[in-house]
Amino acid sequence: MAEAPLTDNKKINLKEKLALFSEQWSARIVGEVNDSHIKLVKVQGEFMWHHHDTEDELFLVVSGALTIRLRDREIHLSEGEFFIVPHGVEHMPVASEEAHILLIEPKTTRNTGTDDNDRTVEPVWI
Amino acid sequence: MAEAPLTDNKKINLKEKLALFSEQWSARIVGEVNDSHIKLVKVQGEFMWHHHDTEDELFLVVSGALTIRLRDREIHLSEGEFFIVPHGVEHMPVASEEAHILLIEPKTTRNTGTDDNDRTVEPVWI
Repeated sequence: MAEAPLTDNKKINLKEKLALFSEQWSARIVGEVNDSHIKLVKVQGEFMWHHHDTEDELFLVVSGALTIRLRDREIHLSEGEFFIVPHGVEHMPVASEEAHILLIEPKTTRNTGTDDNDRTVEPVWI
Repeated sequence: MAEAPLTDNKKINLKEKLALFSEQWSARIVGEVNDSHIKLVKVQGEFMWHHHDTEDELFLVVSGALTIRLRDREIHLSEGEFFIVPHGVEHMPVASEEAHILLIEPKTTRNTGTDDNDRTVEPVWI
């Protein structure tokens, strides 16, 4: 994973970055701020139950709608809404139609949490 | 500054939170994710030159337009665009009309950076 340049930072336009890829469930890194990455991801359908031992994860809906299933409830997010899944909390993101999500999470975060499986993806910079 | 509840997190609607306050240059905390706070701030006019010794600061425009003056250039941000000011880099946010900004920065970040002056504000949760 390449290091992001810090001294010649450019502004990031979310829609322009989203136009650069179409693969679903494969987050792209668009920024780093302190120990966190800012990522964009396109999602549709069900992901899998997982949790992150030490990392909180923020989901902000850029377009579309996202449901985050928790074991005891569901969070329904529309454009302009975010939810923070605390570390240790099992969750499953679900979207009936494609939704575009901005993620904020530590650089160490693996998309499938504590599992390493066929949905595990190493994020790349765009 | 109160601790945010982690186990009963609720979703956050940016526009609803922005409707709760009108004071400019006084950020409100709307979330915590790992060591960072998510803040909303309404800005208009010029702020002051400042920098943060150790904290990177992300500015995402929710509505309006924001210019971030750096010593060697200006960054012009529209809705849906963000810029990350690396730690140590002097900057001055400017907006000709009121703009609404989402900030991501460490919980330790002071709005006036290394200075403590009459524009220093302790952010509160909403």
